[in-house]
Amino acid sequence: MATNGTNGTNGVKNNNAKYDPEFTKHVIGLMAAETKPRHREILSSLISHLHDFIRDVELTQDEWIIGVNYVNSIGQAYKKNRNEAWRVCDVLGVESLVDEINHKIVTDEGITPTSSAILGPFWSPETPFRDLGASVVQDMPKDGQLTFFHGVIKDAETGKGIPNCVFDMWQASTNGKYDVFDPENQTRHNLRGKFRTNEEGKFWFYCLKPTEYAIDTSGPSADLLKIMGRHPNRPAHIHMMVTHDDYVGVTAQLYPNDDPWLETDTVCAVKDDLLLEFKPVENEPKGATLDVEYNVRLLSKKYKPDNTMLMGNANQDNF
Amino acid sequence: MATNGTNGTNGVKNNNAKYDPEFTKHVIGLMAAETKPRHREILSSLISHLHDFIRDVELTQDEWIIGVNYVNSIGQAYKKNRNEAWRVCDVLGVESLVDEINHKIVTDEGITPTSSAILGPFWSPETPFRDLGASVVQDMPKDGQLTFFHGVIKDAETGKGIPNCVFDMWQASTNGKYDVFDPENQTRHNLRGKFRTNEEGKFWFYCLKPTEYAIDTSGPSADLLKIMGRHPNRPAHIHMMVTHDDYVGVTAQLYPNDDPWLETDTVCAVKDDLLLEFKPVENEPKGATLDVEYNVRLLSKKYKPDNTMLMGNANQDNF
Repeated sequence: MATNGTNGTNGVKNNNAKYDPEFTKHVIGLMAAETKPRHREILSSLISHLHDFIRDVELTQDEWIIGVNYVNSIGQAYKKNRNEAWRVCDVLGVESLVDEINHKIVTDEGITPTSSAILGPFWSPETPFRDLGASVVQDMPKDGQLTFFHGVIKDAETGKGIPNCVFDMWQASTNGKYDVFDPENQTRHNLRGKFRTNEEGKFWFYCLKPTEYAIDTSGPSADLLKIMGRHPNRPAHIHMMVTHDDYVGVTAQLYPNDDPWLETDTVCAVKDDLLLEFKPVENEPKGATLDVEYNVRLLSKKYKPDNTMLMGNANQDNF
Repeated sequence: MATNGTNGTNGVKNNNAKYDPEFTKHVIGLMAAETKPRHREILSSLISHLHDFIRDVELTQDEWIIGVNYVNSIGQAYKKNRNEAWRVCDVLGVESLVDEINHKIVTDEGITPTSSAILGPFWSPETPFRDLGASVVQDMPKDGQLTFFHGVIKDAETGKGIPNCVFDMWQASTNGKYDVFDPENQTRHNLRGKFRTNEEGKFWFYCLKPTEYAIDTSGPSADLLKIMGRHPNRPAHIHMMVTHDDYVGVTAQLYPNDDPWLETDTVCAVKDDLLLEFKPVENEPKGATLDVEYNVRLLSKKYKPDNTMLMGNANQDNF
């Protein structure tokens, strides 16, 4: 059993450790021998860090009760299209961290592919292929800025373009909403498209300059933001998911480099190599007023043969 | 912004740290300057430990999603008399740890008072005072074992008995239920009583030998127990809350020293100095078949002038 360092008969005992140094070991030790090794690994670490956190801040009972009530409130706020635990994770940087852990690759020579960033809940498995040079803008909003988007998908080691890559992209309209969550204003597949790179690894299409939006500002995740004095804004972004049979895929979000929320993104998903420079253009053939070039670096699947992407966990709104 | 250690234009960069060493600092740094200092302290530590946990076990995305769903399920299971987040905390040893942090005292001479243990949800502010020698057994269950319970409440430093202490006790009946949660079988205040120590610091009364019971075995807290291969049983116990104007109070649970669940208590609340030895007796004047002596050690309030007890968070069943 857990002991408190006394001998049980009287109070005279020298207790060097401020708190019972065996307690955490005791709780972990309650796990049965037949506990699955991965469960044991995860729960042992979770219990250790949870206890260390509580000891580090010397959590009071009132504070603990606030925490208990807060955890209960997360699931109570859950509903279809509102995954509150996911949001709280995002506010605490957890989704971005998990994304990095699962997708970061550095070769022995120090070469890295394009960074990944969180998928978010709005990717669609049904997005249509479009011809190179086509526009994903089926419904042009009044305040939309048509953009010519182009680049090369390269082998990060050789620098050569990779033919036959799929560049799958999706973005919100200027009202901050994605097609299926905004059926009154958008037709299906608006602002979504898949493009296949040509023999030189090039791709090009038309889209909108993306617009920033705020995550929902009610509920426990927003309460947490308020306590920390943080705003609820995400920088504007275009999502991309790049895949190829022989290369490790990259899922990321691309951000205008002049966005005001880059440094303080609510969900902590901005990385330096995911920034876009939108340049003004005139007399563009299809009427685009902005031009952006973005090149993607991929690494061979030999570096991560078991790479999987997380897809379709769509019980969230507005990330 | 968070960076991943690349320079954003090509992939050639030597990245010594396996994961971005600045990321956790970045998330913590999002807190505004006006964040309350205690909020900052708690949330900084929470974010650090949460991130360290995720990095330590290299949490996969699938595992993270399981965690997200689990957190949501806790609040979804919440209802009146079922505080699921509280239970999950108990299974992970959190309530016991918080209790220790808030109540442990060791004097410069190494003297400790009687250990505290979790309050649980069944304490009542309305428990009546009873005369020394009275019985708290208003409704005798068929399988009840009447016990003569007696002891001295002492000053842990001087060893002298403390007059005028309040020894407030409560226990479940042999069916594992407390009076207000079992109105069909128990009258109000059954198995509860407050006793005031005499001039020598002594108290004595009659109660039942306590009976062990299992915590609820449905819902997320029970799922967690199952994953860990743990049973849901609590050792039998008698609750006590000892108070005096000049001494730091002690709230604890007292356990028969032959209980089979001492080592593996589901809520990790057993401590060596909280064990009771029930001795058989014959021809006891009031018909008790068992006798137990338990002495309590208190320390002067000068050691913890701001001591508070957590009371009445009663939205739980069966602890």
